[in-house]
Amino acid sequence: MTQNLRLKKNADRRLKAGHLWLYSNEVDIETTPLKGMEPGAQAIIEAANGKAMGVAYVNPNSLICARVVSRDPNMRLDRSLLVHRFNQALALRERLFAKPFYRLVHGEGDLLPGLVIDRFDDVLVVQLNTLGMERLGEEIVAALDKVVSPRVIIFKNDSSGRRQEQLERQVEVVKGELSEPVMLEENGVRFSVPVLDGQKTGWFYDHRTNRAWLNGLVAGKRVLDVFSYVGGWGVQAAANGASDVLCIDSSAQALEGVAENAALNGLHERVAVGEGDAFEALVALKADGEQFDVVILDPPAFIKKRKDIPNGERAYAKLNREAIRLLGRDGLLLSASCSMHLAPERLMEVVRGAVRHQDRHGQVIYRGHQAADHPVHPAIPETSYLKALGVRVFRD
Amino acid sequence: MTQNLRLKKNADRRLKAGHLWLYSNEVDIETTPLKGMEPGAQAIIEAANGKAMGVAYVNPNSLICARVVSRDPNMRLDRSLLVHRFNQALALRERLFAKPFYRLVHGEGDLLPGLVIDRFDDVLVVQLNTLGMERLGEEIVAALDKVVSPRVIIFKNDSSGRRQEQLERQVEVVKGELSEPVMLEENGVRFSVPVLDGQKTGWFYDHRTNRAWLNGLVAGKRVLDVFSYVGGWGVQAAANGASDVLCIDSSAQALEGVAENAALNGLHERVAVGEGDAFEALVALKADGEQFDVVILDPPAFIKKRKDIPNGERAYAKLNREAIRLLGRDGLLLSASCSMHLAPERLMEVVRGAVRHQDRHGQVIYRGHQAADHPVHPAIPETSYLKALGVRVFRD
Repeated sequence: MTQNLRLKKNADRRLKAGHLWLYSNEVDIETTPLKGMEPGAQAIIEAANGKAMGVAYVNPNSLICARVVSRDPNMRLDRSLLVHRFNQALALRERLFAKPFYRLVHGEGDLLPGLVIDRFDDVLVVQLNTLGMERLGEEIVAALDKVVSPRVIIFKNDSSGRRQEQLERQVEVVKGELSEPVMLEENGVRFSVPVLDGQKTGWFYDHRTNRAWLNGLVAGKRVLDVFSYVGGWGVQAAANGASDVLCIDSSAQALEGVAENAALNGLHERVAVGEGDAFEALVALKADGEQFDVVILDPPAFIKKRKDIPNGERAYAKLNREAIRLLGRDGLLLSASCSMHLAPERLMEVVRGAVRHQDRHGQVIYRGHQAADHPVHPAIPETSYLKALGVRVFRD
Repeated sequence: MTQNLRLKKNADRRLKAGHLWLYSNEVDIETTPLKGMEPGAQAIIEAANGKAMGVAYVNPNSLICARVVSRDPNMRLDRSLLVHRFNQALALRERLFAKPFYRLVHGEGDLLPGLVIDRFDDVLVVQLNTLGMERLGEEIVAALDKVVSPRVIIFKNDSSGRRQEQLERQVEVVKGELSEPVMLEENGVRFSVPVLDGQKTGWFYDHRTNRAWLNGLVAGKRVLDVFSYVGGWGVQAAANGASDVLCIDSSAQALEGVAENAALNGLHERVAVGEGDAFEALVALKADGEQFDVVILDPPAFIKKRKDIPNGERAYAKLNREAIRLLGRDGLLLSASCSMHLAPERLMEVVRGAVRHQDRHGQVIYRGHQAADHPVHPAIPETSYLKALGVRVFRD
């Protein structure tokens, strides 16, 4: 490697604090022109005074023009370091979980910027979200073979992040073949996962602990699961004794997944589905006089960019208001947001406003975050995105 | 009741948002002089236009001059409403917990400003933290008799908050007698609770779920419990398979409690104690070459008032740095703060700085808050105070 990338004066503060990202306007392009750099290749990062600070892979065409892969300038992210990092990541998960169903690698949170890997036993679903990781694809497969010897590896390269890196979106099976449905177990309940044509990697392990918490409070209750996808919340609620569950989603394919997963656990008689827009469905349920003991709101990110914040907060507010209208005298709302740009205290404010709007009282009895297999890097706020509030909503 | 309390123009916004507090500078004292009000009595709160907004008890001598007890101006906080609120509070706890060990009433979070009640089976420890609640003491005892028929009720009125309300500090058994030690069970482990001469109500139920989380990760590990008090964390760690546990506290009496609680669970051989200042003890342990797999930091509030923030943050930072020095190559830090004035993201920043200072990597794999029997009122940020971060700390 011959590339160096020098930072402007004082542009090294974020890195010194532990962050792993460099922005293109922080580079001293007179000394080290970004334009001349090989996209996706690694470079030594230098402070303004020339001192080496670490190694990063570079993408001159991205706003985040480099991501640090090691603070040791003598290292390179190669098969050997990948094996080391995968072993570190695996050690954490094996300490946390008894069974091989989890996020194995959570990008920056596992010191592997741009790389996400979800594990479904012997099937691994990999997302290469940056050019730097894209270029390491073969090494990643080889390192995974060494560390976990999976039967199947899928590159699920259809994330929106790839567009910013000017990468194409494609899905391919790069090792083995998918001859039968991919299964997982979460909180003791079995699910079939649409790894090839589902959302993201096919499953959202990030809500595991939040679902586990809710599972303890649904016995005998009537539960509404809004934005249900394939039934992660709803089917688990039924498995934990909910008297009946209604899953709402706009995707017929997702709802087929709900039915399949309910049947897998012998719960098809207690899990119903409804196809439609969530907002419209909530209003229609109210008009029909329906009432629930528990309502789960696990919407997609309404705030994808900072500029979406005002509109996004309004959408969360409306959604929570409509949900609360469906609760009985003493109900439970599980209100989640996966928008990194919605701060936890803003979701609290959304709930506060919705409760007051309906002239009810609220008690926030649970504040959940992403599960432990989605580690937060303490210097990178962007690695922390998931919030879930458990709110008792009652009339005084 | 004849008292009215009128707010200045626009001073009703906090109340409309759901908050329960009024500050003395928000009162229209020309129309309704605070000075003339009967301390501790209830008054109807009026907006500037005269519209009744609810009922509050008043303390003209406190910065928070009134706390709302009902949004219905026709209600009074009397035995009947206390019974109703206690029943509501009990219903939540019975839904959450299989056994009668919990915080039964969490002040504003249960719409009972200034009142805290911890339950140890048939023993209730009550804290009357305001003059308004002090005046209702007899009604509170009568209402508790009706709702939970306790054998013993203790008024543990020695909180620092009472000073601001110009109340004396005293502890008395107001019902029954304390003939034998008070016991509790938390996360399956038994403890003896010093209800008369311990800290606060004698026990900190607020960390129950955070302890439960940590309990799953200590088997076979060497654990250090700093600011151990009577061993809530340390004894539970030993009960969950920690190979050995060292509890540090500055109070000899607390450490006697640790020994007693370890013995109660047959764990005395695996739980040691060390008396001393936490900061000095951490330095001394490092000097002695000691190393731990897990370090628990559950300090008292270093930030009691807003003006303490800079000094308090420095104390948290120093404490976390010293703790991390005691961890091995791949250790776990449980870093807590009960300072309401330390925002969750500031504790994250404390951890970030400490990890970087020691040139380690950190993965925040757990973010915990106060347990569900300490409900947060969504309009009252002051009801949310407890944070706990679980951080994997490792060398790359």
